[in-house]
Amino acid sequence: MISENAAMNELLEYQRQTEALSSVAERLVWDQETVMPRGATEQRAEETAAMEAMLHARRTDPRIGEWLETAVPQSPSEERILALVARDFARAGAVPAELATEIARQTSLGQGVWAAARASEAPEDFMPLLDQILSLKQDEAHALVAAGFGNGDPYDALLDDYEPGATQSQIAGLFETMRPRLVALREAVLDADGQPEPLRGRFAQETQLRLARACATGFGYDWTRGRMDIAVHPFSSGRWQDSRITTRIVETDPFNCIYSTIHEVGHSSYEQGIDQDHAFTPLGRGVSMGVHESQSRIFENQLGRSRAFTGWLHARMGDMVGGLSITDADEFYRTVNRVTPGYIRTEADEVQYNLHILMRFDLERELIAGRLSADDLEEAWNARFLRDFGVAVDKPSNGVLQDVHWSVGLFGYFPTYALGNVYAGALHQALRAAVPDLDDSLEDGDATPAAEWLRENVHRHGALFEPGELVEGAVGGPVTPEPLLAYLEEKFGAIYDL
Amino acid sequence: MISENAAMNELLEYQRQTEALSSVAERLVWDQETVMPRGATEQRAEETAAMEAMLHARRTDPRIGEWLETAVPQSPSEERILALVARDFARAGAVPAELATEIARQTSLGQGVWAAARASEAPEDFMPLLDQILSLKQDEAHALVAAGFGNGDPYDALLDDYEPGATQSQIAGLFETMRPRLVALREAVLDADGQPEPLRGRFAQETQLRLARACATGFGYDWTRGRMDIAVHPFSSGRWQDSRITTRIVETDPFNCIYSTIHEVGHSSYEQGIDQDHAFTPLGRGVSMGVHESQSRIFENQLGRSRAFTGWLHARMGDMVGGLSITDADEFYRTVNRVTPGYIRTEADEVQYNLHILMRFDLERELIAGRLSADDLEEAWNARFLRDFGVAVDKPSNGVLQDVHWSVGLFGYFPTYALGNVYAGALHQALRAAVPDLDDSLEDGDATPAAEWLRENVHRHGALFEPGELVEGAVGGPVTPEPLLAYLEEKFGAIYDL
Repeated sequence: MISENAAMNELLEYQRQTEALSSVAERLVWDQETVMPRGATEQRAEETAAMEAMLHARRTDPRIGEWLETAVPQSPSEERILALVARDFARAGAVPAELATEIARQTSLGQGVWAAARASEAPEDFMPLLDQILSLKQDEAHALVAAGFGNGDPYDALLDDYEPGATQSQIAGLFETMRPRLVALREAVLDADGQPEPLRGRFAQETQLRLARACATGFGYDWTRGRMDIAVHPFSSGRWQDSRITTRIVETDPFNCIYSTIHEVGHSSYEQGIDQDHAFTPLGRGVSMGVHESQSRIFENQLGRSRAFTGWLHARMGDMVGGLSITDADEFYRTVNRVTPGYIRTEADEVQYNLHILMRFDLERELIAGRLSADDLEEAWNARFLRDFGVAVDKPSNGVLQDVHWSVGLFGYFPTYALGNVYAGALHQALRAAVPDLDDSLEDGDATPAAEWLRENVHRHGALFEPGELVEGAVGGPVTPEPLLAYLEEKFGAIYDL
Repeated sequence: MISENAAMNELLEYQRQTEALSSVAERLVWDQETVMPRGATEQRAEETAAMEAMLHARRTDPRIGEWLETAVPQSPSEERILALVARDFARAGAVPAELATEIARQTSLGQGVWAAARASEAPEDFMPLLDQILSLKQDEAHALVAAGFGNGDPYDALLDDYEPGATQSQIAGLFETMRPRLVALREAVLDADGQPEPLRGRFAQETQLRLARACATGFGYDWTRGRMDIAVHPFSSGRWQDSRITTRIVETDPFNCIYSTIHEVGHSSYEQGIDQDHAFTPLGRGVSMGVHESQSRIFENQLGRSRAFTGWLHARMGDMVGGLSITDADEFYRTVNRVTPGYIRTEADEVQYNLHILMRFDLERELIAGRLSADDLEEAWNARFLRDFGVAVDKPSNGVLQDVHWSVGLFGYFPTYALGNVYAGALHQALRAAVPDLDDSLEDGDATPAAEWLRENVHRHGALFEPGELVEGAVGGPVTPEPLLAYLEEKFGAIYDL
């Protein structure tokens, strides 16, 4: 027994250091995206590579295998920790070192080549490299399958890294239900009479940041354990006592700053809300990309874009800038939620966003399965876009070249965005049932009753449960896309008087 | 030969990663002192400890010993790299692991206990812990001596970590020359008629920062490879492409901000100026604390507090704030350099600063030698202060409790401050001879001809030469305190009309 306990304790201590070191690596990314001098790119690349190599060596350290063989967990938490360490160790060991190195090499080139091709509207400059990256990711997927991941399915073996336990057939089932209703809703909304007006005016950076801070505070963001900075692409970063958010400023569009902030507060609150006991263990972080996205989306959309919260926002904004171009609060709510045609996923509204994801999910499954080649990708993209969105893509930067993901090897990542929306829909239904007077608080700009319910039912557990198990526990039953679809149809039906 | 080259290359590659990782650890300190949320202290302590443990494991990795045995250097640079790695490896291996852990444990307590004792003016709360830390540092010194460091002298074995090659007898010789002349100069200056006026007024933070930025630019600070933030205790951080400075704001004393900034620019320019070829090798950093301090001091004092530069500063400040309480540029120069009695080292002027160091140097040598105990330290401090400064210490926070250094185990560090001033004096003499029209530039707020001379003669070499060798090469002969003393006597003789 002593040696079993010793193995468990040694493993926990080793893991504790690994978690702390990986937290440092994450901080380095924050630094790079917010405060790093622009002349430091080469040095930073070297520093990042050294951290990654060191962390990779730790994750594949043979001692982990020995500890896993003898360690005996003393609690359900320790049992779960062992399972997570074992999964990570098996994944890291499944991919041959040369393949891992080659993937790292090609994907580090990928982002630059992609960005240049996008800037010059030249997919032909990017597709040969994408073809290589795809081929390497196929090799990785097969290596993972050979090690027992994905139940024999290469795509599922990749997906498992972002959304453990999810499968493409399960997700495809959800998405099949969603697609016709989303397409129909989109068409009805865009055809409706009386489209909402955009908000007009210029909004100073300082005003936008003050508003964003007020929103973050209203959503319960803990400023003693976080901070807000400006970044080109907003993101959140870090865990537990140090979870930071970023936002961006577009002078003519204050909603960009406000809803980016609320979105990132959703991510950050998840990390801030995890039980302290889980800190520096594999339980001390959000359990999956999908669950993470559900937290940012429910903050941003179901709560932040609700009639109740936008009423407060309208008054607050009006006070701050001394009057808005839209004076009626109901009209302001419609403006916040206005649906406009567009090509770009990251700019899409609640109605159209998931349609973007559904199409990427189908395309990347075809790519990984080898049924679609990089050469034919643009054609397939454009055909599918026309089918779902009713318009032809006008240029590659609005089409197949718009997202960075595939260029850096992220296959199996896209569906977690839509899965996050599905989770958010289900959680929102349960939240409203549990906190029936939530709108009273939201009308005062106070979303903390919602944040507290989410902390209690989702955040605090960290990675203690598998994603599906966690969300099912929180909503008290199986998770379906029905609550999300019903919410969208009801909300936009009312806004557009359908 | 292949295996010898292989060993050299493996060592270089390993070292490259270690340098990159240690650069990340340094960045983490910057983050903590500038932008970290205040609630993140526990998490950060864990992260810092994990980085230190990882770096310590790397520095003591047995493979380094094997590589050192077989590696054959292909150039003088590689020869020097091997020597530095060997020294670091031997130092890290000389101290038993339990002793190193115990030192880390006690000194991590030390700072908090010291700060509390200082706040409550209670040396008796701190001295028992200092006694333990001292005893551990004595053990460390003896372990280092046993491993061949310090030529049998325990104090020298500690000193060697901060100023390689320096010895207490050599430094004591320098300081013996300096002490009587500094004491005499101090007395003459403070007894002189017509003491300079202080500058009066309140200076907004934004104004001070704009001035500080202008000064940093005037000294050639490369903003594309650095940035400036506010910190409680100004410091500089980082190397090569990412060397950042910090400053502080005191509303009624803009010189605090300006000269802190110029001081840190001196440190940072050293790191920015190191040859790119040395990056990510042990040559890619300032060679010693003394040489580092010489760069910050020559920027701050010999250049920044010169009549020529303060003439420009006076005009610029006047323009920015719309008039100063001191309208005459000569009088402004006297104000910048005014000498006032005081207890605190960090607030001391050019005349009195070194006297502070000399006394700490003598006291800590007695402590390490076991001729003075922590119990008797306060009495010894007060007696020495009365002798050198002519006034009795009024309270412990102005006396024996004013510096953090000993509480965190820094013995052998203090003399590098005065050594830096001695180096600065010698370098300044050589610089003036090499750039005879330097004042013409300084009068325009442009110190870059000086910065360039220092880059060429000091910075670019990094740690390629031993500190003494480096400074002797730059000044073209042996280094003595005479240039510094002559400079001080001439400058303050003129200012105070002695």
